[in-house]
Amino acid sequence: MKIKYLITLSLILFICSISFAEESDPLASWNASKSKEAIISFVKQVTDKNSTNFVSPSERIAVFDNDGTLWAEQPMYFQLFFAIDRVKELAPLHPEWKSEEPFASILKGDLKSALKGGEKAILDIVIATHAGMSTQEFEEIVTRWITSAKHPTTKLPYTKMVYKPMLEVLKYLSDNDFKNYIVSGGGIEFIRPWAEAVYGIPPENVIGSSVKLEYVIKDNKPALFRQKALNFINDKDTKPVGIHMHIGRRPIAAFGNSDGDLQMLEWTTLGRKIGFGLFVHHTDEMREWSYDRNSSIGKLEVGLEKAKANGWTVVDMKNDWKVIYPD
Amino acid sequence: MKIKYLITLSLILFICSISFAEESDPLASWNASKSKEAIISFVKQVTDKNSTNFVSPSERIAVFDNDGTLWAEQPMYFQLFFAIDRVKELAPLHPEWKSEEPFASILKGDLKSALKGGEKAILDIVIATHAGMSTQEFEEIVTRWITSAKHPTTKLPYTKMVYKPMLEVLKYLSDNDFKNYIVSGGGIEFIRPWAEAVYGIPPENVIGSSVKLEYVIKDNKPALFRQKALNFINDKDTKPVGIHMHIGRRPIAAFGNSDGDLQMLEWTTLGRKIGFGLFVHHTDEMREWSYDRNSSIGKLEVGLEKAKANGWTVVDMKNDWKVIYPD
Repeated sequence: MKIKYLITLSLILFICSISFAEESDPLASWNASKSKEAIISFVKQVTDKNSTNFVSPSERIAVFDNDGTLWAEQPMYFQLFFAIDRVKELAPLHPEWKSEEPFASILKGDLKSALKGGEKAILDIVIATHAGMSTQEFEEIVTRWITSAKHPTTKLPYTKMVYKPMLEVLKYLSDNDFKNYIVSGGGIEFIRPWAEAVYGIPPENVIGSSVKLEYVIKDNKPALFRQKALNFINDKDTKPVGIHMHIGRRPIAAFGNSDGDLQMLEWTTLGRKIGFGLFVHHTDEMREWSYDRNSSIGKLEVGLEKAKANGWTVVDMKNDWKVIYPD
Repeated sequence: MKIKYLITLSLILFICSISFAEESDPLASWNASKSKEAIISFVKQVTDKNSTNFVSPSERIAVFDNDGTLWAEQPMYFQLFFAIDRVKELAPLHPEWKSEEPFASILKGDLKSALKGGEKAILDIVIATHAGMSTQEFEEIVTRWITSAKHPTTKLPYTKMVYKPMLEVLKYLSDNDFKNYIVSGGGIEFIRPWAEAVYGIPPENVIGSSVKLEYVIKDNKPALFRQKALNFINDKDTKPVGIHMHIGRRPIAAFGNSDGDLQMLEWTTLGRKIGFGLFVHHTDEMREWSYDRNSSIGKLEVGLEKAKANGWTVVDMKNDWKVIYPD
C-alpha cells in the first residue's frame, strides 16, 4: 500500500510539474528558437532593475502592425473583403455603379478587373464604403460584418485568423507592464470595434489610417460624421509620424511583417541604446501562406536585408511557431 | 496621572481625527459648494457597482482643456509668451524680421501692434518659432523655456500657475481609475514635455494642435522634422474630432473654461445616460483674473447659457476655491 501511495504521489507531482512548466512558459506556442530567445531576452533585460538596459514601465511602449503581423492578410487585406461586401450591400442605392468602375466589376464578381485601377480604384472603393455615415453607425456596420463574415478559403471568421503566438507576445508584454499599440495601414475605425476583445488592445491604443471627421449637433444630439476625404494614411514613413502624433515617445519594441513596417522598426530601434525590432516572415505555405519579395500584399524585401544589418529578429513562421491560429 | 494620560490620549485622537478628515477629503482645496458636491456625487455614482450609473473602468475617460482650466491664461496664452521669447532668440538669424510684421513690432516690444494682424499674425509667429527643427530639438527648446521663464506679472514659473483645486480633481479621478487626457487648442508638443511632471498626464494622453511632421533617416539615425505647415487645429468643433481620433470613445467627464470647450462638453454629456460637464468661471480678480463674455482670451458667453440648459457645473473660482496656485 505504501508504495502505491508513493507512486500516486509522484505521479501527481509529475503532472503538476508538467502543467507548471507549461504555465510558466509565456510563449508556449513558440518552438525553442532564436526568435523566442530574442523576445524573452529583451523583455528580461528591460524589466530587470539591475540591468543597464532597464526601462521604466512608463517608457515600455510596444507597437504592432496588424495585417500579416497579428492576423492574416491573404489573398488580400481583410478590410478589402469588408469593403467589397459593403459595395454589394450598398449597390441597390447606387444604380450608377452598374456602369462605373471599379464598382461594375465588383458587382460582376470580377475583382481582378476592379483592382486594375490600382490605388485610385482602392481609394474609390474605400471612400464609397467607409464614409458618409456617423462614427457610431460605422462602428455598428464593422461589428456586424466582423461577427458574421467568413474568410473565402479557410471559412473561418476573420477574428479566428489571428496568430496565437503573437497573442502570447501581446500578453507577455502586457504582463510585463508594456503598453501595446496597433500601428496599422488599415483604418483606425475598422480595427477599434474588435481590437479589445481579440487582442486586449483598447480603442485609444489603435493608430491607423483615417478619413476626415465633422462634428454635427442636431436636436441636442452630437455626432461625428465620416467625410468622403482622406485624413491620414498610416504607412511606411508615416508610421513613425502616426506613432509620434498619438504616443509622443519612441516605442522600445516594434513588430511588423512587411516593408511597410520598415520605418516603424527603424524609429523604434536605431540610434539608441535599446530597441527591439521583429519581422514575421511568412514561410508556411501549408498552415498559412508563403510570401515575401514578390508579393503584392505584405511585400518583404528591403526589410529582410535591413533586418540583418540592424540585428532585427526574423520569425520563421513555419519552424518557429507550433500553431498558427488559436483553435 | 490617569487624567493626564486621558487628556494626552484624547488630544492624540483629536489630532489624528483632524488629519484623517483632511486626508480623506480628495478635494481639500475646494470650499463646501455645489461644484464640489457635483464632482464627488458624479464620481461616487460611476464607481459604485450598485449604482445604475456605474461605468466600467475602461470607459472612465476624462478630458481637460489646458489654458484657463488647468493653468492660467492671462494676459495672454502662455504658449504665446514662449513664441515671443523664441522670436527674440531667433532674431539674429533673421535680419529680415526687422522690417517684417508681426516680427518687427515684437522686436520693438510692441506686442499690441504685432497682434493687430489677428490670426494670420499669430500663425506666422507660431510657424516661425515652432517649426523647422526635429521633434527632439523642439522638446529640448520647450523644456529649457518652461524651466526658466517667468510670468510677467506674478513672476512665477508658468508651471507654478496651475490650479491646485484642479490638480486635486486630476488625482481624485485618477485614484478612481479614470484615464485623464488634456484636450487643448495649444500645441500638443508644447504641452507634452512637462505635462507628466506637472499634471501626472503622460505624453500619450495629450491631444492638441499640431504641425505636419516628416520622417527622415540620415546616417542610420531617424528623426521627425517639424514642417512649416499646420496639421490640425484642436479647438471648438474640432475638439470632439481630436478626442475621437486619439481615444476612439466618448469621455464621461469634460472640464473646460471657455466657449472653445463647448463642443467638447456637448460631446461628453449630451444624448446619453451619464456625462459630467464643468466650466471653470474666472471670477477672482484678486487672486487670479476675472473675465468671461468680453474677454478676447478664454471668452465664456454661450457656455454660460448652455451650462444652465444642460445641467453643467459652473465653478465660481472666487468662492469655490480655497487657494488658486499650489504654493
